[in-house]
Amino acid sequence: MTDTDVPRSPAQLLAELTLEEKAALLDGSDFWHTEPVERLGVPALMLTDGPHGLRKQAEGGDHLGLNASVPATCFPPAAGLASSWDTDLLRRVGQALGREARAERVSVLLGPGVNMKRSPLCGRNFEYFSEDPVLAGDLAAALVEGVQSQGVGTSLKHFAANNQETQRMTVSADVDERTLREIYLTAFERVVTRAQPWTVMCSYNRINGVYASEDPWLLTRVLREEWGFEGLVVSDWGAVNVREDGVRAGLDLEMPSSSGAGARRVLEAVATGRLSTADVDRSVLRVLELVGKSRAALAEPGGFDVEAHHALAREAATRSAVLLKNEGGVLPLAATGGTVAVVGEFARTPRYQGAGSSQVNPTRVDDALTALRAQLTGREVTFAAGYVPESEDTDPALVAEAVANAAAAEVVVLFLGLPDSYESEGYDREHTNLPPAQTALLEQVVAANPDVVVVLANGSVVNLEPWQGSVRAVLEGWLGGQAGGGAVADLLSGAVNPSGKLAETIPLRYRDNPTIGNFPGEHGHVRYGEGLLIGYRWYDAHSLPVAAAFGHGLSYTTFDYSGLRLAAGEGGLDVHVTITNSGPVTGSEVVQVYVADTEATVSRPDQELKGFARVTLEPGQSREVVVTLDERAFSFWHSTAGRWVVEGGEFGIRVGASSRDIRLATTVELPGDGVHVPLAADSELGTWLAHPGAGDVVRRALDGTPWHDMVFDERNGEMMRAIPLLRLTRFPEFPVSEDDLPALVADANA
Amino acid sequence: MTDTDVPRSPAQLLAELTLEEKAALLDGSDFWHTEPVERLGVPALMLTDGPHGLRKQAEGGDHLGLNASVPATCFPPAAGLASSWDTDLLRRVGQALGREARAERVSVLLGPGVNMKRSPLCGRNFEYFSEDPVLAGDLAAALVEGVQSQGVGTSLKHFAANNQETQRMTVSADVDERTLREIYLTAFERVVTRAQPWTVMCSYNRINGVYASEDPWLLTRVLREEWGFEGLVVSDWGAVNVREDGVRAGLDLEMPSSSGAGARRVLEAVATGRLSTADVDRSVLRVLELVGKSRAALAEPGGFDVEAHHALAREAATRSAVLLKNEGGVLPLAATGGTVAVVGEFARTPRYQGAGSSQVNPTRVDDALTALRAQLTGREVTFAAGYVPESEDTDPALVAEAVANAAAAEVVVLFLGLPDSYESEGYDREHTNLPPAQTALLEQVVAANPDVVVVLANGSVVNLEPWQGSVRAVLEGWLGGQAGGGAVADLLSGAVNPSGKLAETIPLRYRDNPTIGNFPGEHGHVRYGEGLLIGYRWYDAHSLPVAAAFGHGLSYTTFDYSGLRLAAGEGGLDVHVTITNSGPVTGSEVVQVYVADTEATVSRPDQELKGFARVTLEPGQSREVVVTLDERAFSFWHSTAGRWVVEGGEFGIRVGASSRDIRLATTVELPGDGVHVPLAADSELGTWLAHPGAGDVVRRALDGTPWHDMVFDERNGEMMRAIPLLRLTRFPEFPVSEDDLPALVADANA
Repeated sequence: MTDTDVPRSPAQLLAELTLEEKAALLDGSDFWHTEPVERLGVPALMLTDGPHGLRKQAEGGDHLGLNASVPATCFPPAAGLASSWDTDLLRRVGQALGREARAERVSVLLGPGVNMKRSPLCGRNFEYFSEDPVLAGDLAAALVEGVQSQGVGTSLKHFAANNQETQRMTVSADVDERTLREIYLTAFERVVTRAQPWTVMCSYNRINGVYASEDPWLLTRVLREEWGFEGLVVSDWGAVNVREDGVRAGLDLEMPSSSGAGARRVLEAVATGRLSTADVDRSVLRVLELVGKSRAALAEPGGFDVEAHHALAREAATRSAVLLKNEGGVLPLAATGGTVAVVGEFARTPRYQGAGSSQVNPTRVDDALTALRAQLTGREVTFAAGYVPESEDTDPALVAEAVANAAAAEVVVLFLGLPDSYESEGYDREHTNLPPAQTALLEQVVAANPDVVVVLANGSVVNLEPWQGSVRAVLEGWLGGQAGGGAVADLLSGAVNPSGKLAETIPLRYRDNPTIGNFPGEHGHVRYGEGLLIGYRWYDAHSLPVAAAFGHGLSYTTFDYSGLRLAAGEGGLDVHVTITNSGPVTGSEVVQVYVADTEATVSRPDQELKGFARVTLEPGQSREVVVTLDERAFSFWHSTAGRWVVEGGEFGIRVGASSRDIRLATTVELPGDGVHVPLAADSELGTWLAHPGAGDVVRRALDGTPWHDMVFDERNGEMMRAIPLLRLTRFPEFPVSEDDLPALVADANA
Repeated sequence: MTDTDVPRSPAQLLAELTLEEKAALLDGSDFWHTEPVERLGVPALMLTDGPHGLRKQAEGGDHLGLNASVPATCFPPAAGLASSWDTDLLRRVGQALGREARAERVSVLLGPGVNMKRSPLCGRNFEYFSEDPVLAGDLAAALVEGVQSQGVGTSLKHFAANNQETQRMTVSADVDERTLREIYLTAFERVVTRAQPWTVMCSYNRINGVYASEDPWLLTRVLREEWGFEGLVVSDWGAVNVREDGVRAGLDLEMPSSSGAGARRVLEAVATGRLSTADVDRSVLRVLELVGKSRAALAEPGGFDVEAHHALAREAATRSAVLLKNEGGVLPLAATGGTVAVVGEFARTPRYQGAGSSQVNPTRVDDALTALRAQLTGREVTFAAGYVPESEDTDPALVAEAVANAAAAEVVVLFLGLPDSYESEGYDREHTNLPPAQTALLEQVVAANPDVVVVLANGSVVNLEPWQGSVRAVLEGWLGGQAGGGAVADLLSGAVNPSGKLAETIPLRYRDNPTIGNFPGEHGHVRYGEGLLIGYRWYDAHSLPVAAAFGHGLSYTTFDYSGLRLAAGEGGLDVHVTITNSGPVTGSEVVQVYVADTEATVSRPDQELKGFARVTLEPGQSREVVVTLDERAFSFWHSTAGRWVVEGGEFGIRVGASSRDIRLATTVELPGDGVHVPLAADSELGTWLAHPGAGDVVRRALDGTPWHDMVFDERNGEMMRAIPLLRLTRFPEFPVSEDDLPALVADANA
C-alpha cells in the first residue's frame, strides 16, 4: 500500500504506468510471482501449482519449480474426485483449497485441469476429470466456485487440446472444429460460463498447427467473444514462443519470468508497430484487475483447520472410490470373524498422488493397513508386503509370505496399483498393465485363497481383464490423496457405503481404445481421427464389450428407478425420475441422464451424458430427482453454419445407473432450429431443389426438357440430384447455363 | 487422313493449329468423343466406359450416357477379378477387353478403377479391387498392360481418394499426406510406373479441400514429376468446375463435351493472361499424342472371338470365387448320389455385374442352374426360387416350396446375394446385410436340411455372421460376369478347384469397420480418421476377430509351406519359399508375403502385404516360389522429410496362406537411410542434443551450469529434454539466450 488506503482502480493505475512498466507487468518477476509496481502500490501476486492441493514452493525454489513445497492438504487428484460425480463435494474441496491458498498468500491456484482423457496412456490423466466434457465441466465449475469463494483465483487449464505428454510442447492436435467444440472445448466452456475462473492457462501444444499461446481464435474469439470470459490468460510455464504474437492473440501474462526477454520483445513490437499500445493496455488492464481481485485475501490471509481439511480429504476419498465388483457380497468385511490377510506394499506405503507439478507436500498421510486395523478390532489383521512397488521382478520371499498369510486367512485384501514411475506429468504410459510382479502375486494369492478383494491405487485405468474374473471384489481407489488409506478402510468395513461411479470407461483391452494408430502421433502431429468418439462414445459406436462401463459403480444397497416423466421447465426440459433405496443400508446413487439423437443428418454418438444428480437415501426411502436439459443438451456444432444447432425430430432420453445400465427411457420430439446454409454454384442440384425460392426457379427451367425425367427418375434420380449445378450446366442441352449462375446464386441468398 | 499417308507428328500438328482449334481440342465433341480437326486429319477418338467389359453406347445416346450399349463380353467386375490374385489372368482379360474395344473403334477404355475399399458400404466397391494398394496396383497394372497391348488405351481412375458415392461430386476427403501416399495413391503409382496407362481420369471429389480436377500437386507434381506419367489426364464425366484452373493444374481433356463452354473459358483466360499459351499447348500436345497412339488400332480394328472371350470370362470367374468354408468336405459335390436341391432365384436369374456406368450389355449370360444340371447328370437337381430378389418380404409359398425341396434332398445349394438396387454407382449401401427375405429363407432351409452350401452373388462384402455357422459351406462368387453361372457349376462339381483369396476382409460386424463415425462424412467433408488402418491393417491393430481374413480362401487340396529363406536379389530382397501340394487334387495356391516393421519410430500397421505369387501344383508336386521385396516394401512416407524412408532395424517377413494364416516367418536387419530433418528454434532440446554438430555446442553450454543436472536427470530429464530450445531460453539463467538461436540454427543446418 502506498500513500492511500483505497487502492486505485485498474483503469486509474493503467493511466499512470509507463510503457516500460506495462511491458514488465506482462511478465513474471520470478518463477511464481507477477511483477510488482511498488511506486503505485501494485503488489506481486503469487500463482502456484496444485489442482488438488497447494504446492507452494519454499523460498529459494529451483529453476523449474520442482522442489519441495510447504505442507498442505493433499486431496484426491481429479481422477478420483471426478468419480464422486458430486458437485457439492467439489465445491467444499474448492473452499478448503481456497482457504489454504489464502493462508499462504497465494492469489491464484493453478488448476483445475479439464483436458479430456482421450487415451488411457496420457501420463497426466490422474490430474484430469473424465472422458466426458459435461461431467468434467460441471465438477470443475464447482471446484472453481469453491476456491474463488475464498477470494483466491483459479487457473482453468490446459487450454486447449493438451491431451498427452509426448511432445506436449510442440505437437499439433489436428482436430476438426466440430470435435473441438463438442468434446475438447466443452468442459472449458462450461466452467467459464458458469464460474468465471479468474484466469485461464493456455497450453503448450499447437491446435491444427497454431500454438495455443498464439491463437487469436482460441484465446479471444472463442474464449472471450463467444463465452464471455472476463479474466486473464496466463501461459503455461514456458509456453511462450513469440511474445508479441501471444499478446496480440490474447495471452496476457507470461510465466515464469522471462528475465526481461518478453518485455523487450513487447517494447520492440510497439516501437515497430507490430503491437499497438491498445494491445498492451488490454493485457495490462487484466493483470491489474487480477491484482484488484486479490487484494482482499492478501489483506486478510486467515488460516485453516488442518484436521478438518484432513477429514474432508477422507470424505472426498470415500466418495471417489468405485466399487467395480462385489461377488456374493464379500464386502463389506464383517466386524468379527476370521483373519483378514492384508497383502501388498501399497497398504502400508500408500500411493496417493501423481508426480509432476501437482505433487503436494501433505500435512500427513494415512495408510490403509493402520486404518483397517483400527476399524477391524474384532478380527486379526495380518500383513505381507508381497512386492516392491518399483520393481518389475517378483520377490520370491515376499510372495511366499503373502501366500502363507492368504492361505491362513478367511479373506484376503490385496492392495495393487501403479508405481510412481508409471504415471507422471512429462511422459505418457507405455501400457495399461499392472507391474508383472503384482499380477504374478495375485495369481499365487488367488490360488491360496479364492476370497480375494483387490484394492487398486492408480491415477489412470489399468487392465483388469487378465485377473478380474478370478477375484471376488474390486475396489478402484484411484489416487486417494493423503487420507485415502482411511477412506479405503471406511469402505471395506462398511462404515461408509461406496457411491463412486466411473468417470472413464475401463476398456477390456488397450487395443480397443479409440486412439490406436493415432496416439501419440508423429513428426509433430497427432490426428484426432476418432472425432467425437472419445471414451464410451467409441465403445458404444463399435458395440465393444468393456471391462467396466462409464458411469458404473456398485453400492452395498440397491436402487430402483421409476416414474420417468418429462416436463417443460424454466431452464429447458426437466427430466423427473424417482429413486428408491430398495436395499438394507443408507446409500447414495448417481442418476445419469443420456440423450440420443436418433434422427440426425450428421453422425452423432449413440448417446451422450447431458446431466446427472446425486441423491442419498435411507433404506426404503424414495425421492424424486430432477435433471434439467438445456438446449445444448440436444445440439450439435454445425460446421458449415458455424453455430450450435438443434435439429428437429425425435430424441431419446435415457436414465440409468451407468451408460450401460439404462433403467428407464423415453423419447421427446423437438421442433429444432432452421439452418439455411447459403447456396453456391457448386451446391448439389438436390440442395438447389430443396431451397424455398431457388428450387422453384430450377424446377421451372427443367420442366419440359428431357432432363426433367432424368432428375426425378426413381432409379437414377438420386445420382442426378447429387451433381452440383455448376457441373450440370456443362452437360449438353442442360437448361441452365454457367452464365446464369451468378444471378441465381445472388437471388437465392438474398 | 488428309493429303498424306504419313500422319504428322503431334508436334507438327500443334504448330499448325489455331488457338481456337487448340481450345476446342481440350473439350469433348459429344458424350464419348474428342474433337476432330478434319483439315489436319486429326480424328475424333472414342472413349467409353467399362473396366470389366466394353460399354459402347449405340448411336443416339442420352445426355448422361446411361442407355443401352452394343453387346460385349461381361467379365467379372474388379471385386471378383481381384480375388484371383492372378496377374496373368488380369493380363489376358485386359487383352480380350482391348480386342473388343479395338473391334468397336474405341480408343480408350475407361478403367480400371483402383480406389481403395475404405468402407464396406461404398456403393461402387464392386468396381474396385481391394483394401490393399499393392494387390490393387499389381492386378490393375496387368490389366492395363493387357488392354494396351492391343493398341487401345486405358484410363486409370478415379484419381484420387474417391472412395464413396455419397456427395462424391463435392466431398472433401480430409486425409494426411502419409496416409494418401501409403494407401490411397499407391495403387495409382504402381500402375503408372509399371504400365503407363495412356490416360488417367481425375475424380469428382476434393482432397483436403481442393478439387482433384484442379489440383496441381496431384495432377502434375505427384503424377508427372514424381511418377513420370507420360499420358493425358481426362476429367471424370462432369468433374470440371473452373476449366482454366484445371488446365493450369494439369487436367488436359474435359469430357463430355461442355458444348463450347470450356473452350470459351480457356480462350478468355489466355486473353486475360490467366493461362499462358504454353499451358494450353502442353495439354493439346497430350491430346495429339493420344491421337497418335490410337491411329494403328483405328486403321485395323480387327474382330474378336465371342466364344473364346466367353470361355475366358468363365475361367476368370472360377478364379475369382473364394471358398470361404467347406465343413467336412461337403464340396465338391459328388458326380453321383442323392438329389441336389438348388434354391434361390439367383441360380436361375444370375446377378453378375453392378449398376451404373460400368454396366455391360453381355453377349450371353449363363445361369448356374442350367450349368449345374449339365454337369451333375448323375444326380437329380431340383429348383425352387425361394425369394424375389428385389423384395424385402418373405413369400410364404416360395419358402414352402424351397423347404420341401430341401427336406427331400441330400444336399442343398442355396444361392443368395444382393439385389441390383443394393449396390450401384451413385449411392452408398445402407448396411451390409443380405435382404431379410433371404436370411429368413436360409433359416428355414437349414432347419429342413443341415447340409447346406451357400453360394453368394454380391459385389461388396455381406454380413456372414448371423448364419455362417449354420451352413456347411460358403462359396463367395462375387459378381461373376456373364459366365459366372458356369463357373459356379465348375467349382461346385470340382471340375475346377477353387483358388480365389479374399482381396478384402469380411468383418464380423459392420460396427467393427474402421470408418464408424467417419463415413460418409457430413457438410462436405469426410475425415479419414483411421489413417493407414484400412481393412486388415485395422482389424489387426485392434486385434479384432473377423468373419474371414484378408487373403483367406480354401481349396479342395492342401498346401505345405517350407524352406523360407531370404537372399539379396537384383530387384531387392528375394523371399524364397517352397510350396507343396500335399492333398489329393491339382490346385493353385496364392503365397502372400507380409512385412512388419517391428522397430519403427512412427506408427506402422502390424503387417502389410508387399508381394504375392500364384502357383499351380499337381498332387505331391513342390515348387520354389520367389517374391521380390524392393525398397518400397520397407519404406514409410516421412511427412517432415517429404520422402520415402527405410528406417534401419529389424523387419519381420511373414509368409502365409492368408493375413491370419502365416505359415513361416523370419526377420531381416536393414541398415536404412539417414534422415536429417532441419533443426529449428522450437525443436526440442533432445532433438538438438541428438544432432551430430549442434548437440555438442548445446552440451558445452550446459556444462557446469545447474541446468546440466536437470537435463540429464534420470527421473525428470526426459521431461526437460522435451522442451523446445526456444522455450528454455526464457527460463531464468538458461545458458543459451534467445539472441543466440538464429546463429545456432544456421550453423546446425549448414
